[in-house]
Amino acid sequence: MTAPVVAPEVGEFLKAGRVARLGTADAAGQPLVVPICYAFDGRHCYSAIDAKPKRQAPGRLKRVLNIRQNARVSVLVDHYEEEWSRLRYVVLQGRADLLSEGSEFTYAVDLLLGKYPQYRALDLDRRSGLVIRIIPERVIQWSFAA
Amino acid sequence: MTAPVVAPEVGEFLKAGRVARLGTADAAGQPLVVPICYAFDGRHCYSAIDAKPKRQAPGRLKRVLNIRQNARVSVLVDHYEEEWSRLRYVVLQGRADLLSEGSEFTYAVDLLLGKYPQYRALDLDRRSGLVIRIIPERVIQWSFAA
Repeated sequence: MTAPVVAPEVGEFLKAGRVARLGTADAAGQPLVVPICYAFDGRHCYSAIDAKPKRQAPGRLKRVLNIRQNARVSVLVDHYEEEWSRLRYVVLQGRADLLSEGSEFTYAVDLLLGKYPQYRALDLDRRSGLVIRIIPERVIQWSFAA
Repeated sequence: MTAPVVAPEVGEFLKAGRVARLGTADAAGQPLVVPICYAFDGRHCYSAIDAKPKRQAPGRLKRVLNIRQNARVSVLVDHYEEEWSRLRYVVLQGRADLLSEGSEFTYAVDLLLGKYPQYRALDLDRRSGLVIRIIPERVIQWSFAA
């Protein structure tokens, strides 16, 4: 399925966000939500299983196991503040797969290194690791004011 | 199942958070993540289908339909900042049900009114509406520094 066209202002909101929340679910339907650093290039979101300390090896992480069982995912980028008239969120509903090599893997790592200077200190690796590619199929947007 | 004992510092983090992200999944395993206002009383999380503008009537909201199909949920409370050494999150894995009346419904609405003064202007209703009750069964916590 071709990724949907994302309206320019939604694309800007997704590009500007610093943290997203990724929802996956295992084969039994148990959801898991975790915060992710991500890059959105107008078409896909990419998130690295990165060098931040993890409880498990990358391939054993629950989000990765979930995607291997069930490719359906949800990615939320939101803005919260106490002035509720400015609340806003965008959800991408779609599917995910895992990249571990090749030109798109390197491209995704470079996007992440460009967006997050913090990754340079963590030695985010252009030659090994795992990247989650999220392919949006539907865009939900909400704002308090709309 | 009895709710697990939440360590005091985890409980404080959950009580202090102003926004959580709720993950549900429909019967086909499609996850959905949305931001929620919530109150945690040390045992359960409560979130109202409230008076913020919604795309659907409360009972038709996708998160509610999902919970009716599949009670398994994930609730994430996290702290993001650019100084990654201070990143932290807590995830509650468990199940949810819906309250629409009775003493626990009123108790939950009062907790939410106490935590969020914004609800007073929105006329969050103590007599009607829907509250999602989240019953944690497992607590996952992560911090960069741990």
